[in-house]
Formats: sequence, C-alpha cells, structure tokens
Amino acid sequence: MKLDSLYSELTLKTNAKLALLVMDGLGDIATAAQGRLTPLEAARTPHLDALAKESAQGRMIPVAPGITPGSGPGHLGLFGYDPLEYQVGRGVIEALGLGVELKPGDVCARANFATLDAKGVVTDRRAGRIPTETCERLCARLAAKIKKIGDTQVIIKAGKEHRFVVVFRGKGLAGPLTDADPNREGFAIPTVKPRDPKNAKQKKMVKLIADFYQAALPLLAKEKPANGFLMRGIAHQPDIPLFADRYQLKPACLAVYPMYKGLAQLVGMTKLEGPQTIQEQFERYVREYDNYGFFFIHFKYTDKAGEDGNFEAKKQAIEAFDAALPILLAKKPDVIAITGDHSTPCAVKGHSWHPQPVLLHSAVSGTDKLERFTETGANLGSLGLFEAKFLIRWMQANARMFDKFGA
Amino acid sequence: MKLDSLYSELTLKTNAKLALLVMDGLGDIATAAQGRLTPLEAARTPHLDALAKESAQGRMIPVAPGITPGSGPGHLGLFGYDPLEYQVGRGVIEALGLGVELKPGDVCARANFATLDAKGVVTDRRAGRIPTETCERLCARLAAKIKKIGDTQVIIKAGKEHRFVVVFRGKGLAGPLTDADPNREGFAIPTVKPRDPKNAKQKKMVKLIADFYQAALPLLAKEKPANGFLMRGIAHQPDIPLFADRYQLKPACLAVYPMYKGLAQLVGMTKLEGPQTIQEQFERYVREYDNYGFFFIHFKYTDKAGEDGNFEAKKQAIEAFDAALPILLAKKPDVIAITGDHSTPCAVKGHSWHPQPVLLHSAVSGTDKLERFTETGANLGSLGLFEAKFLIRWMQANARMFDKFGA
Repeated sequence: MKLDSLYSELTLKTNAKLALLVMDGLGDIATAAQGRLTPLEAARTPHLDALAKESAQGRMIPVAPGITPGSGPGHLGLFGYDPLEYQVGRGVIEALGLGVELKPGDVCARANFATLDAKGVVTDRRAGRIPTETCERLCARLAAKIKKIGDTQVIIKAGKEHRFVVVFRGKGLAGPLTDADPNREGFAIPTVKPRDPKNAKQKKMVKLIADFYQAALPLLAKEKPANGFLMRGIAHQPDIPLFADRYQLKPACLAVYPMYKGLAQLVGMTKLEGPQTIQEQFERYVREYDNYGFFFIHFKYTDKAGEDGNFEAKKQAIEAFDAALPILLAKKPDVIAITGDHSTPCAVKGHSWHPQPVLLHSAVSGTDKLERFTETGANLGSLGLFEAKFLIRWMQANARMFDKFGA
Repeated sequence: MKLDSLYSELTLKTNAKLALLVMDGLGDIATAAQGRLTPLEAARTPHLDALAKESAQGRMIPVAPGITPGSGPGHLGLFGYDPLEYQVGRGVIEALGLGVELKPGDVCARANFATLDAKGVVTDRRAGRIPTETCERLCARLAAKIKKIGDTQVIIKAGKEHRFVVVFRGKGLAGPLTDADPNREGFAIPTVKPRDPKNAKQKKMVKLIADFYQAALPLLAKEKPANGFLMRGIAHQPDIPLFADRYQLKPACLAVYPMYKGLAQLVGMTKLEGPQTIQEQFERYVREYDNYGFFFIHFKYTDKAGEDGNFEAKKQAIEAFDAALPILLAKKPDVIAITGDHSTPCAVKGHSWHPQPVLLHSAVSGTDKLERFTETGANLGSLGLFEAKFLIRWMQANARMFDKFGA
C-alpha cells in the first residue's frame, strides 16, 4: 500500500489551525571560528526558548543524505511532496515568482541577460548585473516584437537586475530541455536538447527555443553590455496534487518574496498579499485566523545572511523573528512548526545539505525538556532525523487529523 | 534485492533465547501538567534502571510518521512484519480476540447489534449499547438457527455490549468487502460489495452476507432495541509467513488478553495458556526456557491506564512490571527487548503516533551509558529512531543470528 494513500484514507477534517514558520536557510553549523556556536545558538531568543520548553525537536533531511536543495525542492519537501517525485524547473519557479499566472502545459525558462563578444562567446553571464530598469526596458522591447512564434504565444517578464523569464504557451509543448547556458564564461551559448530524445513535445520545444533566439538576438545586437541572453531550467509546470485536497486543509501563504509565493501557488495555496515584514505577516495571520486551516509563513533574511557568510546578520535576523513571534502566539495556532527549508551555513556561504533543526509544538507534542531551540538541541529531540516531507504528517497528527490505522 | 530475502539468506540457527517484553502503550509524552515527566520517568524502576545501564536504547515509529496504529499493526510491526504489507481486517482481529480458532480461508466480520425503524433505516448504530447478557442471548439464538448457509459454516460469537463476530468457514471465500454499515444513523444498511469486483471469491462472499441477513433479520424482528445488525471489516485471515520460518526461531506467546494471543497465533506462535499476572508470565517463561527460542510476553495494564488518562495508574503498572522483572532476569534471556507496541499517552487518552522508547540488552548490545530507561533517554540512544519492524532484526543481530554480508 502506498503511504500517501494511507494518509489520505485516514485523514479526518479538522477545525484546528496549523502554522508552518519557515526561516529560510535557518540551519547552520558550529565552527571553531564561530566560537563553536551556530547563529541560532548565539542569538538571544526568549520567545523561541519559552516555546522550546514545551515542544518536540528533531532534524530534517531536505531531500536525501548529502543533497543540497534549491528553494524549490526545499519548500516542496516542507509542503509534504517528495522533491524527487515532483520536480519543478527553475523557469517555472521564477515565472511564478514574478507573478505570471501559469496555465497547464506552459513551458518556462529562466533567462539572464549576458554579454557576448563578436564571435558569440559569452564574456559576462550576467551582463555586469545591469540595473533592473534596463532589464525592464529590454524585456519590453522583446515582448513588443515577439508575441508569437508560429502558433505559440510568448510571454516575457522582467525580474531583478539581469534576470527575466520567458513563458511559451501553446499546444504540444513540454520540457525539460538542456540549458542554453555554458554555465561559465569563454564559451558560446550551447544549443538546447530534449532531455528525452524520443519526446515529440520536447523536440518541438527545442525548435521554439532556436526560433526565439533567432528572433530575439538581433533586437539586442546594439545593446551594451546586454547584447545576448542565456536560458536555463526550461520545463513545463508539473502536475502537482493540490495542497487542500491532499491534506484537507485550506492553505494560505504569507511570503514577501515572489519565489516563495510562486512555490505556494504551485500547490494551490492562497497568497495573502501586502505584508512586507515578519511583524506584518504575523499580524495578517491573526486577522486571517478564521479563514484558513494552514498558514505558511516565510522569512527570508536568515538565508540572505547565510549566503553572505554574515554570522552577525543571521543572528540578528533570528532575533528579529523571535521578537515578532509574540504577535503570532497571541492567537496561538494549535500546531506550530518552526524550521528552515534547508541549511545555509555562514561558513558555506550558500545552501547546504546539513539537516535543518525543527521545532514542533502542540497540546500533544510533549516536551523534549530542552531549554532552547538549537541545532545541538535538535539532535536530542524525540523526532529524531527524518525526511522533511514527513513534517506535515507530524503536524497533521498533532492536529489529531489521522484516524487510527487498523484495530 | 529485497531486504527480507537478505535477512533470510544471512540467518544462522541459534540456541540463544530472545525475549520481547511488550508493555502495551508504554510510550508517553511529558507535559507541563505532568510536571514535565512521563509515567516511565516518574516511576520507580530499580530493575529497569540496572538493565538500562548495560543496554542500548532508541525510539521506534510503529507504522509511519504521524500514524497511530491499532493493536494489530502495532504488534505485527513488533513481530517484524511491515504493517502496510500485512493488513489484518477488523473482523479477524475481533474473532481472534474473542478466542475463535481461525482456519486459513476463514472470512470474519465484526458486527454490531443496531436499531432499525419500520423502513429499515438505522436509528441507533449500537442499539443503545445493550447489555452483554442481551448480546449473548441474541447471538445464541442466531447461532442455534443459522449453522450453515449452503455449504458454508457460520460461527457467531458474542462480544461485549452490542458487539459480536461472525465467521464464515468454507471453500472459495475471500474478503475484503465493503461494510454493511452506513457509518451514521438515518440511512439503510448498504449492500456489501467486493473490494475487487473481479474476484470470484469475494463475489461469493457478497452473496453469503446477503443470505445471512435474510436468515438473521427475521430472528431479531421482534427485539427492542436490537432488531438489526451491522457488519464491518469483512475480510479473510491474511496469508502471513510463519514466524518460525521467517526468523528461524521457535516462538511462544505469553499473553493474558485474547487479542494479543490472537495476533501471536496469526503468525504461528504457540500460546502458553494459564498465567494471569506478569509474575506468572515470567515464571512460566522460566519453566519453558528450554522449549522455545523466542518469547513474546505481553503486559496490558500500561495501555489501559493510558486510555483512561490515569497517569498514576500507568506509573504503578510500570512499577509492577519492574517489580516482577527479577523473575525473568534470574534466567536471563540472551537478548531482551523492552518496549511498547505504540504510545498511549495519558494526555491523549488513546493510542498515538509518538515513537515509543525501546531498550535492547545483550552481551553485545553495548551500553549507551544511560542511567534509566525513559523516553528522554531513548532520544539519546545508539539505536536512534527507526521503524518498529526492524526491532526483531536488531534482536537477531544481538543473538548473533546473521552471517556477514559480503566479504
């Protein structure tokens, strides 16, 4: 029997409120240079400490031992979807992040403006990180001139700095393709190939990408430095079961950054727009308390500080999160999980594979008698080390959403 | 390679004695209201403490993260059978629990006396929870009048209050079927259907259920309030590999309650009847020491106290178990595992999903240097958090029953 079917069969409706609080890239490692402390351990977190005293803790493997996830697989895991079963192309994530309302069958590519020399060799993969305004101007030009290729609609949307997305909407299209990106300077833009050479839809897509380059490159030829572009993560929107159907919980997303809104949208969460700070996100949670069963609340700044290798900034981000926490706790959810989508250790200056700590609190979570929520504490917790995709099942159990299995 | 095949291939015969001591529903959670202690932590357990000092500990997931098991899946897991692969119908467990000696191919249904109105609509699914004596009287009447349907033998056995079981014994029968139970009042009794519409044995069984209703309902027509009945969990005894073959260990069951004897019988354990207390069970173990290789010793009272939410009673049950333990230790098994089949936290007043603690002791278990056997200690143990179905493999390994794998 498939485990997901079992969970579905046993699921009971609930009026309980569940909140998943994601401090992006929260997990970290203790190093000698950091006084053998992680940012979470060094931070002053009185409200997390109080919660930890009445909570269970553990560690989560985002995808598989040693695998470093991007934000896509990291969040799909947190939402309870096996990141190996449900793979989402970077193009789709970027498009969703930029607010494109995708339709089934749309193929998306993440694109970068780049600098090419006279021979077509990539000399700067980010075109000197052109200002966002330049990117918007160039995208507007491309969009005005290239609305269709054959019977396929083309949607071009500018992102930040050198980034944009291209969405192909039409019949008989599919990804994934290989990248139109040499992934380093000094090489020409490679021709894309179908990942599955026998897939006719992918082959049609290969032709479309070639045609798109042929139409678009002349429109940029006189630009400096953005006289070319690279395309990556070319794939269609995967067929993912809706969160509300899968868990019998009406979900809302409180995220500030587009990518996380996009990921939430991918599984059918309602995006609650407006809040710009964690205080405002928690305040909005309080106002929307009666309207949803599940709240995904995303906090970006831990990851940013980790990417920068800035221990102090990561510590302060955690302290800022902690300081805002009482707003949420004033209207306490029945089940609270606090974790990251992966680790972003300051010493790594990027995402990593280190299992991230998780705290789980409910009236029936029990307490692991730990005084604080930390990586070292999480090692001692009753939840042990588990795959992130099971977090939502522990949350549902704590919400008393599962009937007994067997007599 | 399937893991079970690997275990089988590597299995060596042994003269070692293995004992699995199950304190039913042992696992619990620490809550603030309980002084942040579990019953196991609050209990005075000098003999378990002494054993813990020379043992390994860990936590076990009975079925899957967040899943609360009934006694059936809980025990099948302890016996090393994947509870998702080997599912046992409610009817079979109830029949075994009432002491029916099932034969291969028997189809069992769990039944409730119920109240029907003049149109056959169920107005009370439990017939006002009639006294057990009434149930026994009605079952005796049905049993006297309905001994056979066609060439199929019918066995009817009363349970407590409104509950009884019906066993169909004959050729070419199989379950599972859908329930003859609307699962709520205000609806008529639905006609059962085969779970697999192509299965001829299930279709024969559908006819038998219809014939049974036709024969039985007139015999109850004048009763008040039990003028009807519902049937659920209609299924045959699953085909489970015998314990002795699977593990190369001759198993004996020392349980007091019928359901646990029934579950042991399901995998072919010999039931050692007679003992009524844990002292008597341990004494019988000592007497039978030479006759078996594996002893399953079941202690019910921890679960009962947990179901009642009675912290003090659960603590006392554990203390009573501990006090009797020296009887067993006087003729110490080579491998001892002490655990529960699941958690029954007092705060939950029922079975739960919380991973239960386990203690494993042998000459080669090593010690985790823990002073006591507790939930919090188990979090720190060398066995980590693992699926309960692997406990028997750890036990076999400690009995030196596995040859080396590979060179």
